[in-house]
Amino acid sequence: MSSSVVTAGLVVIGDEILSGRTKDVNIATTAQFCTDLAIELREVRIVSDDTDAIIEAVNALRARCTYVFTTGGIGPTHDDITADAIAKAFGVDLPINEEARAMLEARWAETGTPATPARLRMARIPVGADLIVNAVSAAPGFRIGNVHVMAGVPKIMQAMLESIAPTLEGGRKVESRTVPAAVGEGAVGDPLGEIQSRYDDVKIGSYPQMGNTHVMTYLVLRSHDIERLEQATAEVQVLVDRLHAEKNIVLPKEPYV
Amino acid sequence: MSSSVVTAGLVVIGDEILSGRTKDVNIATTAQFCTDLAIELREVRIVSDDTDAIIEAVNALRARCTYVFTTGGIGPTHDDITADAIAKAFGVDLPINEEARAMLEARWAETGTPATPARLRMARIPVGADLIVNAVSAAPGFRIGNVHVMAGVPKIMQAMLESIAPTLEGGRKVESRTVPAAVGEGAVGDPLGEIQSRYDDVKIGSYPQMGNTHVMTYLVLRSHDIERLEQATAEVQVLVDRLHAEKNIVLPKEPYV
Repeated sequence: MSSSVVTAGLVVIGDEILSGRTKDVNIATTAQFCTDLAIELREVRIVSDDTDAIIEAVNALRARCTYVFTTGGIGPTHDDITADAIAKAFGVDLPINEEARAMLEARWAETGTPATPARLRMARIPVGADLIVNAVSAAPGFRIGNVHVMAGVPKIMQAMLESIAPTLEGGRKVESRTVPAAVGEGAVGDPLGEIQSRYDDVKIGSYPQMGNTHVMTYLVLRSHDIERLEQATAEVQVLVDRLHAEKNIVLPKEPYV
Repeated sequence: MSSSVVTAGLVVIGDEILSGRTKDVNIATTAQFCTDLAIELREVRIVSDDTDAIIEAVNALRARCTYVFTTGGIGPTHDDITADAIAKAFGVDLPINEEARAMLEARWAETGTPATPARLRMARIPVGADLIVNAVSAAPGFRIGNVHVMAGVPKIMQAMLESIAPTLEGGRKVESRTVPAAVGEGAVGDPLGEIQSRYDDVKIGSYPQMGNTHVMTYLVLRSHDIERLEQATAEVQVLVDRLHAEKNIVLPKEPYV
């Protein structure tokens, strides 16, 4: 376990997400993956199938984050240009990688699939990159520098994340506590801000949900420092208990997530 | 109907999305909204509740897109800093807006809600901005320049999008056609790339789905030019029919979306 903050950026590549045709699920998967590894996901960008757009996003995020993940655009068709863009971003060539070719050809041999030029596109890997092998697809992703290039198909993306997890260094574990309040954000805003002002090592978020019968506001506290987290949570709980008492609100006792 | 291309960028603001605690739905809503209005959504960025991060994303996108939309961070709590960041990005002050205050106070009067400093934060609007009034919440969003600042709560966000729709100029309508192919991307990659090379006014995308029994690849063609679109679609259909015939595949006749 490291004591430093480890950060990540995610670049989601694909016109189909931006047009609304496909609903992305890789963002939520990656967010949870990072949280589980105590990596702080700092920024996500969704860009179109455009070489310059991909290069700009990857270069911006790889300069400021410990890790960058990309999803999408590594298949065999003409609109799969992620490998080309990454090679260009790093200023390296993009030859057929013999290890990747061997993996693909072994799979193709099993199924009697011919090795067409389009399929061989998937064996093009930037010089200096390591392959990201996965259990679902024979087509590998790759890692170059701090950038991890992965598939857009969710099942394959998840298999690739699991494959790279042991190679990533996690940060200090962030713990969180949630205090549910059956009042609107306006009712807690001022006193919550006052508590936040005394705890700069605890990040307090306020997330309202409009239910069908009443509003709920979930107050989420997050910190590396468990002792300070418990102190701040106790203060927030006192505040919420007071607000509930003022309005004669008694919440059910089941656990909240 | 305009003949030019109208573009948009979306900035989603919120630590809760990046931590995986909340699954975003506003991206898909905005993508569909833009497609319906013939606006091309060019890029999406998800940033944390951090003033500099918000300013950087908004300034980058407002310089290159016809419209920018933001969601999140306009509530009454200390972590709602979007209005502050937008005012800073435009170099203007952020006073209490009397029209916004009147709207909020009218709602508060109905419910006997006191006008606390936290609640009044929601009436702070950058100088020069117009309010975005909506049917669900009394707290308005606002438009300044080409930037539309909206709520993160999905129901309110959707009401605000509906409220601004009549004020937006749409682009030339893009039509799309989908040709389903019961083969993998590798089988269509080369001939599809050849067709694409002869139609630079038609954008052809290839979207594989891993089903439980067999793979499907949806070939989606998009263009402003309906005649060229139909020509390219007919060529892709001939290609897919040939691939299906080679493998004795007969797809069911129900319509695909």
